[in-house]
Formats: sequence, C-alpha cells, structure tokens
Amino acid sequence: MRLPSKVQVMEVGPRDGFQMERQWIPTEKKIEIVNDLSRLGFKEIQVTSFVHPKAVPNLADADELLARIDRVPGVKYQALVPNLRGMQRALAAKPDRIHLMMSVTESHNRANANRSVEESLKEFEQLVPMALEAGIEPEAGLACVFGCPFEGEVPWERLEWVAKRYQGMGIKGLNLGDTIGVGNPRQVHDICARLLDRFPEMQISLHCHNTRDMALANTVAAMQAGVTHIDGAVGGMGGCPYAPGATGNVATEDLVNMLQEMGVETGIDLDGLIAVSKKLQDLVPHPLDSCMVKAGKRTDLKPAPKAQKKVG
Amino acid sequence: MRLPSKVQVMEVGPRDGFQMERQWIPTEKKIEIVNDLSRLGFKEIQVTSFVHPKAVPNLADADELLARIDRVPGVKYQALVPNLRGMQRALAAKPDRIHLMMSVTESHNRANANRSVEESLKEFEQLVPMALEAGIEPEAGLACVFGCPFEGEVPWERLEWVAKRYQGMGIKGLNLGDTIGVGNPRQVHDICARLLDRFPEMQISLHCHNTRDMALANTVAAMQAGVTHIDGAVGGMGGCPYAPGATGNVATEDLVNMLQEMGVETGIDLDGLIAVSKKLQDLVPHPLDSCMVKAGKRTDLKPAPKAQKKVG
Repeated sequence: MRLPSKVQVMEVGPRDGFQMERQWIPTEKKIEIVNDLSRLGFKEIQVTSFVHPKAVPNLADADELLARIDRVPGVKYQALVPNLRGMQRALAAKPDRIHLMMSVTESHNRANANRSVEESLKEFEQLVPMALEAGIEPEAGLACVFGCPFEGEVPWERLEWVAKRYQGMGIKGLNLGDTIGVGNPRQVHDICARLLDRFPEMQISLHCHNTRDMALANTVAAMQAGVTHIDGAVGGMGGCPYAPGATGNVATEDLVNMLQEMGVETGIDLDGLIAVSKKLQDLVPHPLDSCMVKAGKRTDLKPAPKAQKKVG
Repeated sequence: MRLPSKVQVMEVGPRDGFQMERQWIPTEKKIEIVNDLSRLGFKEIQVTSFVHPKAVPNLADADELLARIDRVPGVKYQALVPNLRGMQRALAAKPDRIHLMMSVTESHNRANANRSVEESLKEFEQLVPMALEAGIEPEAGLACVFGCPFEGEVPWERLEWVAKRYQGMGIKGLNLGDTIGVGNPRQVHDICARLLDRFPEMQISLHCHNTRDMALANTVAAMQAGVTHIDGAVGGMGGCPYAPGATGNVATEDLVNMLQEMGVETGIDLDGLIAVSKKLQDLVPHPLDSCMVKAGKRTDLKPAPKAQKKVG
C-alpha cells in the first residue's frame, strides 16, 4: 500500500465545529482551546469565520479571537471568508491565511451563501488581490465537491471549471469538502488523482464529514492518489447549517490515530489532542463523536483477567 | 483504485450482535430478524452460537432458532462452535457451516474460551472431521488477528503458524477478526496480502469492529489486497464480552452502502437492510450505531430551501 510518508493535518474544529453550536461558547473558552491546539504540533488551524454574526452567532467574536489568541510560531492561523465584508474584517484581524468558501453547486451555494456560484467567484476575483497585497495567503474552500444534497452528483466538468477559475485568480490551494459525507473511496481517489494531474501546481486538501462513516476510508483513498493535506475537527464536532443530514467532521484524534498507526508522520501529539477533546466535551451540551476518547489508544493495554470461570 | 467487482457480505448480527445484549431477545423476534435478513440477498448469515448458555445467555436458544428459521435456498446458515459440546449441538441442529472460534493470542483465548490456543486447536482437529462427515463446512474464526488487548501486536509468525494448523485440518476459510478494532488499513492490507500469497487455496474473510472508526478503511484496504468476503452486523450491533473497550461491528448497511457507492456488486437490498436495522432498534434498549439509518442514502435528495434570508 503506497502512502505518503507525511501528512499535514489541519485542525478546523474552532471554525467548523463551534459554528454549529447553538449554545454560546465564551470567547475565553474558545481562546483556551485554540491555544491548547496551537501547542500540539499542528502547522495550521482554522480558527474562525468572518461570516455575518446573524448567520453564525457563535463566531461573532472572530475579530476578538484573532486578536487575543497566542500566535505560536510555525502555526498558520486561518479564517473563513465568504465575501467582501468578511474580507474587510480579515484585513483588520490579519489571519495568516483565508479560506474563500463557496459551494460548487448552484443550489447549495444559494442556500449557504445566498448567491450564485458566478457571483461568489466574481467577488473572490476582487478579494484575492486584496489578500495577497496584505500578505495573507488565500485558499479556496469548495463545498459539496463529492455530492450535493439538492443536486446529487457533481459532474467532473463543473469541478474542473471551478478549479480553473481559482487557478486564474492565482489561488494555490483547493480544499475539497465532502460537506454532506457522501463521497466514497473510489470517487475520492479518482477526483483527487484527476485534479492533481490537471492542476499539478495546486495543493489539494481533503475535508471530510463522517456522515456515512466513510471519512477515514476516503482519507486513505485520497492519500493513495497523492493528497498530503487532510482536515479534521477535534471531537468530531461540526456539520453544516445548510446541509441537511450532515453530521460532524471526522474527529481529528481518530484521523491522527489512524495516520500514526500506519506509520504516517503527522507531528501531532495524540495524547494532547485526546486531552483537548475531553476538555471540549465539558464545553458543549451534547456528546462528541470521538472514538479515541471512548476506546483509547491501541497501546493502552489491559491486564488479562485473573479469575476466569469455565464458560465453554 | 483496483477493487474486486463483487464482494460477498456475511451478516453476523444475529450472532455477534445478539450475544452482547443483556436483555433477553425473544426467540420469535430473533427468528423474524433472521427471516427478514434471509430475503435481502445475503449468501451467508451467521445466525447463532453453540457456546454454553451461561457464557452467552442470549444465545441459549441456538438449537431452537436453527430448527425454526426459514432456510431460504441459496443462503448458508452458519453457527459459531467453540468446542466439542458446541459441535455435538451443531450436529443435531445442522447449520450449513460452522465457525470454529479461537483467539490467536494465548491470553485472549484463555479469557474468551478458558483454554490455551493449543488446546483449542487440538480439539478443532477432532471436530473438523466430524463436521465434514456430517456435510457441514467448517471455517476458522480467528479473533485478535490485528491486535490483542492484553498482548498488543501479533507477530506474523504466530498468524502463519495458526493458519498452517488450520490448513493441516483441511479448513478452507480463515475469518480474520479485528476483535478490538485496532487494525489499521496498511496493516490489514499487508496481513491479508501475505496470507493470500502464503495460503492461496484459503478463502480469507475480514471481520471488523469499528472501535476506532477504521472498519470501512480497513475493508477497502483488504479489498485492495484481494479479499472479497467481508462481515458486517446490521445496526452496528455487537462487541466482545471478553475484549475490553470493544465496540460494535461495522454496520452492515454502512458497509453495503460504501460497496455499492463504489460500484462493487453485493447483491444486497440496501433499503430492505435499512428497514431491518430500524426494526432492530425497537428490539434493543440502547441506540444502534447505523449511519445509514441516521443519514439516509446519498440518493435521498432534499428539495432546495425556498426562502433564503440574506446572511453573507
């Protein structure tokens, strides 16, 4: 089985997870979680989103969060930007990278961003030079790449067209979102391989929701196609407010466990990550979806039972 | 991505699932579930276990169950047999196949079967001819192939030695159990490939618990190594009474969904299977772990929202 020797895992929980929480999470607590995550070996953390506070009330403190977190050297702090207003806030808050978010299908982009794909792309064409001029690196976040709740399968031609538009803007990173968790390993492998072949200069990363339990299988498939950048959300937090049926992101600790068990280097402190996931459980009023918290690591050996009654 | 065009999925829920239920499931209900499953296209169902009723009270009705289920032509009904007493019951109840269950590590076999591996194998050497003479096909069920809760990793030499012993008995099927859900895709791929290479006449099948969410990734990895027989338990039921931390088997409906989404033929009616999983939820007092029940199929498209407030 040919796999990359290293994978860079991006933590997206503070954005993609907290945005879904109905109960307000105090800014202090968010800062504490981001600061904890910053010391675990991640090279990039998606910390918040400059969407309108009415759309995502729990991330209304994006500006304050970016101002107050400890910026650990070697870690890039990324924020989601959906439009010009978000870009203006980003220019003031100065994340290291911005994630220009758009759905590849018309109906999902209208549901999520209330505009057409063309309108999003036209605006991004204005935002990219603004970001680059400010020394902020832009990447493209593509939602519904592997399927849309309203339109079903997405034709390859559509993906290629969107990628070309981003290429034209000078974007160097495409983040492929399986927003509603419908991608399957063969499909993920084929789309990643095709994009890497067609756009060799692009950094292709994968963002899986684990709605149908295929996130880790899709991760391995993407890695077999050559992908070396994968997203996870600590505790398996998350979902999508406008993607019916979507459940959480793949739990970063489950992802990192699998990678490390396969001998793939991540540079991430798994024990520390499990500890953050447990702390997070105290912040949200619903059970998180983390296998590693429930089951522990493989190396947590149990003593063999002493008394054994005859059962056979 | 090279995958087999067809995979035979064995349903093991009525054995591996029901055995873990503390609350008695009436025999009538078990029969109804097995009869439902029998009409969904499975070629083999593991329906019960001839273990001592004190060890697994919920399967105390194994003899009655096998006598009373509808035996649908084309479906093989399999029962687990751990020892001579179980074999004697199996000879009377006449399943089509028996599953001779043993752990590959000493400490787990002692915990699970209260005997050494050598003692289990010696007894199986007596049972195999009895089964063959009665026209019952034996297969070997190996627990803890990918790791043991007490001993950790299992050396290849151990697996090879066990497989050779079974080969010597004339056994033609090895079922590799990831009893505590610690196997990773690279390891599963490599062990499957190595066993298929070393024992080309053996049918190698995979039995995953989803304890660390790697079951579907491991399934794809095994298929890439050439494995074409995979177990699942409807509703993700199951666990192992003597494997600390073990959680359920991979849900058959989630497994079948992934296979069918990849274009791999299973012959199984996924809608019917989801319906059985829902029915099962009414029989057990705890939530089942089925993504397909929660999320539905990819093709269950949603109408796009009509009213969209401006959020950007």
